[in-house]
Amino acid sequence: MKEDLDRLMQVRRLDAIVVSGPVHNNPPLYYLTQGAGLMAAHVIKRQGETAVLIANPMEREEAQRSGLPVIVSSRYDYRGLLQEHGGDRLAASIAYLQRILAEQQITGRVGFYGLRDQGAAYTFLSALDKALPEIEVVGEFEHDLFQSARATKSEEEAQRIREVGRRTTAVVRETVAFLQNHAVAADETLQQADGRVLTVGDMHAQIRRLIARQGLEDPEGFIFSTGRAAGIPHSKGALDQPLRLGESIVFDIFHREPGGGYFFDMTRTFSLGYAPEALAQIYQDTLDCLAEITPQLAVGEETRHYQDMTCAFYQKRGHPTIAENNQTTEGYVHSLGHGVGLNLHEVPSFSSTATNTTRLQPGHVFTIEPGLYYPNRGMGCRIEDVYWIDAASKVHKLTDYPYDLVIPMS
Amino acid sequence: MKEDLDRLMQVRRLDAIVVSGPVHNNPPLYYLTQGAGLMAAHVIKRQGETAVLIANPMEREEAQRSGLPVIVSSRYDYRGLLQEHGGDRLAASIAYLQRILAEQQITGRVGFYGLRDQGAAYTFLSALDKALPEIEVVGEFEHDLFQSARATKSEEEAQRIREVGRRTTAVVRETVAFLQNHAVAADETLQQADGRVLTVGDMHAQIRRLIARQGLEDPEGFIFSTGRAAGIPHSKGALDQPLRLGESIVFDIFHREPGGGYFFDMTRTFSLGYAPEALAQIYQDTLDCLAEITPQLAVGEETRHYQDMTCAFYQKRGHPTIAENNQTTEGYVHSLGHGVGLNLHEVPSFSSTATNTTRLQPGHVFTIEPGLYYPNRGMGCRIEDVYWIDAASKVHKLTDYPYDLVIPMS
Repeated sequence: MKEDLDRLMQVRRLDAIVVSGPVHNNPPLYYLTQGAGLMAAHVIKRQGETAVLIANPMEREEAQRSGLPVIVSSRYDYRGLLQEHGGDRLAASIAYLQRILAEQQITGRVGFYGLRDQGAAYTFLSALDKALPEIEVVGEFEHDLFQSARATKSEEEAQRIREVGRRTTAVVRETVAFLQNHAVAADETLQQADGRVLTVGDMHAQIRRLIARQGLEDPEGFIFSTGRAAGIPHSKGALDQPLRLGESIVFDIFHREPGGGYFFDMTRTFSLGYAPEALAQIYQDTLDCLAEITPQLAVGEETRHYQDMTCAFYQKRGHPTIAENNQTTEGYVHSLGHGVGLNLHEVPSFSSTATNTTRLQPGHVFTIEPGLYYPNRGMGCRIEDVYWIDAASKVHKLTDYPYDLVIPMS
Repeated sequence: MKEDLDRLMQVRRLDAIVVSGPVHNNPPLYYLTQGAGLMAAHVIKRQGETAVLIANPMEREEAQRSGLPVIVSSRYDYRGLLQEHGGDRLAASIAYLQRILAEQQITGRVGFYGLRDQGAAYTFLSALDKALPEIEVVGEFEHDLFQSARATKSEEEAQRIREVGRRTTAVVRETVAFLQNHAVAADETLQQADGRVLTVGDMHAQIRRLIARQGLEDPEGFIFSTGRAAGIPHSKGALDQPLRLGESIVFDIFHREPGGGYFFDMTRTFSLGYAPEALAQIYQDTLDCLAEITPQLAVGEETRHYQDMTCAFYQKRGHPTIAENNQTTEGYVHSLGHGVGLNLHEVPSFSSTATNTTRLQPGHVFTIEPGLYYPNRGMGCRIEDVYWIDAASKVHKLTDYPYDLVIPMS
């Protein structure tokens, strides 16, 4: 949580942090500016003190919405510095940041965060570290300050995620109703009003409209895949395929609040009209897996424990899993879940690597998503819900949607 | 253009490049993979050779759409390396990339591109440079390889941008029709059917619906601002303000193809019912400016020359400009334009800094956007069109939309 930042800075012996870059699609900056809607900014924070926002004068009104003290960037006169340095942007950028750090009286270990071209970041931070002996440039490679702070959500953040979930389930419900509303041809394909066959591509267009109508942002697309493509976890769907009775449909939808806010993430598997025996079986195995695992979610447990349980469960049912063969593309082939927040994938991870020592704790918001994949048998299934552990360690399911596999046609 | 990459690598003495990170909102990777819709990937390219895509096996179908030779990442066994390195992700990531580079027989100067957390990039590339004596890690701070290649567009890219423009003008047209369709109260505010006043916030919601209906992606929002907010170039609009006759409305809309593709960017200024004298005057000055500047757009000219002309033009008409005072917030306060492509702002820049030696050339796609801002007089205006210079040096305006200031109410 945001109030953990100072403690987490202390653990990392960081005297200050600099967070910069575009605000959109740059979670640490969104997080600190409360999604103020700026195009680009610097946020500077000393340990134990309030963060300061440095914003373009053209964006001064947006900057106020951050709730942070605002300094307009023209005060540091980048253009003047550029002239002074004969047009050398690297030198001017270093001098510019030096001015800011000096005014904020920052010395010592300074952590840098925020998205940037990796080569530019390497060049700039290497040069900065050399040019300013009074500071030590610190970069973190994993479990960084912001990932750690953002791993636990406040009640308000969890409620925002729940609200995105409400809109997401509305899209799923409307998608199902739309499917049901089609005629079925003799070959069991779905037909549109004009007699053309309904394809996965048509469904993608329809789902995009439904998402927009719910006011959700679509930064990473979604998965609506059928048959063989449903058997490949990340396939978004083969657009030319017709919708057909009795085929597995994997619908995985992961959208966020407009302006770069919080994500939700859910998956349901459907079969139109009826479900063939083999599909019904892997779906039941997945439902049973969910029923075994989720009541055991509890604060203090290692997340990888649930991944191990899932593999063991599926093995018992006769499915290959990545526990025996980490390159398998049949059976259970991914990890059980992931945190959800300003990034679609964040802490906690449920991977079963020996180094994953994450334990569930209050504030975690995460997916649980068992699934089985058999591309060569033309089918796959996955069920994914979001869970939140509140401050009193109570586990809440934030996904309010039924588990029916078969969608009866109307 | 993409075919310039080898030549541009040669100029930079780069033996190879590594482009990595998420694909979405990561233009260099989108560019090389043709927007294949992957979540994350590495692209490796040796000078003079075809690029190779390394993709997650779960995304192998999407990877094929890139048109590049695909290697599945499991081949390099990151999980095994992580175990070997006792869970040290930095060491494992270096060993992983070392395996890839060795297999691709890459040595010498290697440029790194693609978005990443800046601290993580610094840490990783510093460690990589130390660990692999056979390569020299190269990062570029400005005018980098991809910015340079992407500065000029192929005919196909220009046509894609034109098509985004067609959909963008449709949104503007529909927005105008929506405004016209409102009743006007005695105090000259617009009224909705239920008698509530129509606010800027209502217009934002309506415009978002129109954008979605056109199948456009909205990664950076848009500007629909009135009155005083219209006098602040980057203000997105004061949401609680009512729409009112005779007030300047600045509508700046910059959306892109779904899935992270090409942007378009246009601005119109409107006034409902009638235009007050002062607004009509600054609008006419801006129209006249456009009429003076744009016929002079020609291959070989320095872009800053047009910025200087614009400042001179506005000065002659009695407006303050950034040419005299680079901190002014009244009059003409920004630069004349910018390239448009996979980023909303790219090369060519029209800034008038001494170091900007950019000249117009075939393949450039860019905005021209003069405007005047008087926040304290409660008004502002801007007109923005996109231009494309084709291979035969012919200048095309890609924005097909009239310049009427006054929107008559129906």
